[in-house]
Amino acid sequence: MIQTKVITIGDELLIGQVVDTNSAWIGQHLNEIGVKIDKIVSIRDTESAILNELDDPSMDIILVTGGLGPTNDDITKETVAKFFGTELYLDQTYYEQLEAFLASYNLAMNDLNRDQALVPKGCRIIDNKKGTAPGMHFHKEGQHFFFMPGVPMEMKLMMENDVIPFIQTHYSLQSVHHHTVLTTGIPESELAIKLEEWENALDNGISLAYLPNYDGVRLRLSCYSGDSSLITEIEKQVAYLKETYPSFVYGEGEETLGEVIATKLVQKEQFLATAESCTGGYIAHSFTKMAGASQYFKGSIVAYENEVKIEELNVAAEHLFQFGAVSKPVVTQMVRETLKKFQANYAIATSGIAGPTGGTEEKPVGTVWIAVGNGRRIVTKCFQFGNERERVIRKATMTAMNILRTEFLNN
Amino acid sequence: MIQTKVITIGDELLIGQVVDTNSAWIGQHLNEIGVKIDKIVSIRDTESAILNELDDPSMDIILVTGGLGPTNDDITKETVAKFFGTELYLDQTYYEQLEAFLASYNLAMNDLNRDQALVPKGCRIIDNKKGTAPGMHFHKEGQHFFFMPGVPMEMKLMMENDVIPFIQTHYSLQSVHHHTVLTTGIPESELAIKLEEWENALDNGISLAYLPNYDGVRLRLSCYSGDSSLITEIEKQVAYLKETYPSFVYGEGEETLGEVIATKLVQKEQFLATAESCTGGYIAHSFTKMAGASQYFKGSIVAYENEVKIEELNVAAEHLFQFGAVSKPVVTQMVRETLKKFQANYAIATSGIAGPTGGTEEKPVGTVWIAVGNGRRIVTKCFQFGNERERVIRKATMTAMNILRTEFLNN
Repeated sequence: MIQTKVITIGDELLIGQVVDTNSAWIGQHLNEIGVKIDKIVSIRDTESAILNELDDPSMDIILVTGGLGPTNDDITKETVAKFFGTELYLDQTYYEQLEAFLASYNLAMNDLNRDQALVPKGCRIIDNKKGTAPGMHFHKEGQHFFFMPGVPMEMKLMMENDVIPFIQTHYSLQSVHHHTVLTTGIPESELAIKLEEWENALDNGISLAYLPNYDGVRLRLSCYSGDSSLITEIEKQVAYLKETYPSFVYGEGEETLGEVIATKLVQKEQFLATAESCTGGYIAHSFTKMAGASQYFKGSIVAYENEVKIEELNVAAEHLFQFGAVSKPVVTQMVRETLKKFQANYAIATSGIAGPTGGTEEKPVGTVWIAVGNGRRIVTKCFQFGNERERVIRKATMTAMNILRTEFLNN
Repeated sequence: MIQTKVITIGDELLIGQVVDTNSAWIGQHLNEIGVKIDKIVSIRDTESAILNELDDPSMDIILVTGGLGPTNDDITKETVAKFFGTELYLDQTYYEQLEAFLASYNLAMNDLNRDQALVPKGCRIIDNKKGTAPGMHFHKEGQHFFFMPGVPMEMKLMMENDVIPFIQTHYSLQSVHHHTVLTTGIPESELAIKLEEWENALDNGISLAYLPNYDGVRLRLSCYSGDSSLITEIEKQVAYLKETYPSFVYGEGEETLGEVIATKLVQKEQFLATAESCTGGYIAHSFTKMAGASQYFKGSIVAYENEVKIEELNVAAEHLFQFGAVSKPVVTQMVRETLKKFQANYAIATSGIAGPTGGTEEKPVGTVWIAVGNGRRIVTKCFQFGNERERVIRKATMTAMNILRTEFLNN
């Protein structure tokens, strides 16, 4: 069994200013290729702490993140050179790459950036596609050391493009096969009760984990990669869940609900538009953050103020007065006008009380009306998403998107 | 200086299923009373890993979370007893407390819960106000060990009610004073060069850290709380930075750029609306995610498609043809029409190429035109935010918001 340690460097981690999400990401991705991390250590940005943690002969692989930025408080590189008994030099190739990288952002080389091209002799440079600090790989007495920046995006790309492939090539790993089924719109406990019988009948070689987050509950099925009959069995179970529970199982693997919908709309050559009150642009953002959104997304009216609902979405003032902005007639009209205004095939509308204020006895904080429809049919539904503002916005967004997805199933 | 270590126990941390937020919380709260954590270690739920980490004579205080639950995979308590050379016994007082606690939830005592009242001899029990697992405090050869459950709420209450007061009583602590200055729109290296002289002239008792994230670079100034002249000096330097660099210093402490703008708009009793192409609703979301947005935010037109820009924002088709959607005349018109349409005092408009496709030689991916204005004056500027879609959207959002903030300075 390979012994692996992750070291994250930075005072900000130890005083709690930043939560270390890097090591969880690394843990998850190494686990997928069959490497279990034995220890995660967060330490200060001091020479003695770094030297002390690097000096660990019990480990085969040591992954380090953080402490590689251009400013004075980052001393990792000098310390690394000291640990390996070597010295820093200016790597000409990396310097030229860096110059080109900066130029692509219209930035000139300066002294601080120039220092980024200083690397310890004897290391293999790991390319940084999204930043200026180079990654470093050392091999010493059977141990492999990988040094990466603390910026999550830069670290992730280095892991995916370099470190993970390297580890897979150099060790024979018994990897774990995972397959994740994605659900939304059903609480974990309810899901567990619904799946109890199915879960009890699962093959002993297959393990199941419930992984809840803001957007729903993921079901992760795992087995050892060596057993192809178990892998086939998992595929079968995934297909079963998708077929049996189409209303809350929306996808699998790394898919997002937005992607599932996008694929469908592009296939159908149809267009979506949204009218958002309580979600305030978050549904539009959930689509437009994905590449290629212009193929199916027309736009949105964020109608935060009632006046905007009247002027832009032709909502009747008497409806606002009689039923309130958070009501079925209002979201229905929002969908109707959005379909027309944007000449869209589908429209989503939301109106709710995200809180913390604005709730009444009849419509407490968390009440959200959602309407989804096309020219033929509009579905409306009222939900209660609790009293935490961010959660209300995200749950309303996921739920509205999931209604659109289930509408496709009927069409 | 007291040496302090936090140990978090649990396989789920090492395979990345759960992000360890406990240690960041502990780090922050201990830092506030003057205890700097030297090391955070996450380890598996195995006897050898736990024994190995507990055996650390260099530490004065060791705080442990996790591994105290009722299910089979939690072996911490047995291991703790072994480490201290003692054995588990049923604590009658705790047992009765537990019975009362369960009764308050209408639950009966069962075997799993009964085992929670087993504690190692020689420990002081730390009350658990929100769960069944007792906390434990050992004192051995000058070292203090605190064991707490991994459930954040249970851990936090034990820390606040027991562990922190204990540490404050038993050590004479020198707490650290932090003050953070928030910047945006300037890369870390450029900022460091601009501040080099100022940084070198800082009092030796003040330390400075650069903390970059997606939204900008935070500058953290720290000193020991005991020295009130240093605290005054830090306040002076914070004021100096805010006054000298108003274009990129937007706030301090835990403020967000959105909050700074919101406060200003509410003060002025003025309203904002946005017209978003490449940011696709993210600016609207950045305001509407904050409580109270309806006091100053009217709404947004997310004009993703050109047709929508023409129909909804009255952009001239010949401008789209002649200059393209990503151009000064287009964003200028978007601001003008948004001011009118929403009867807003201020409007923000964005149009850019978020990528990954759609770039040309003249306007590569990452090119974004931003316009910000009111009835009297519209500022327009073109930016290059690189080739990663999410980054382009977030940088464009922060930059547009920062232009609005600097406009307030001129008005």
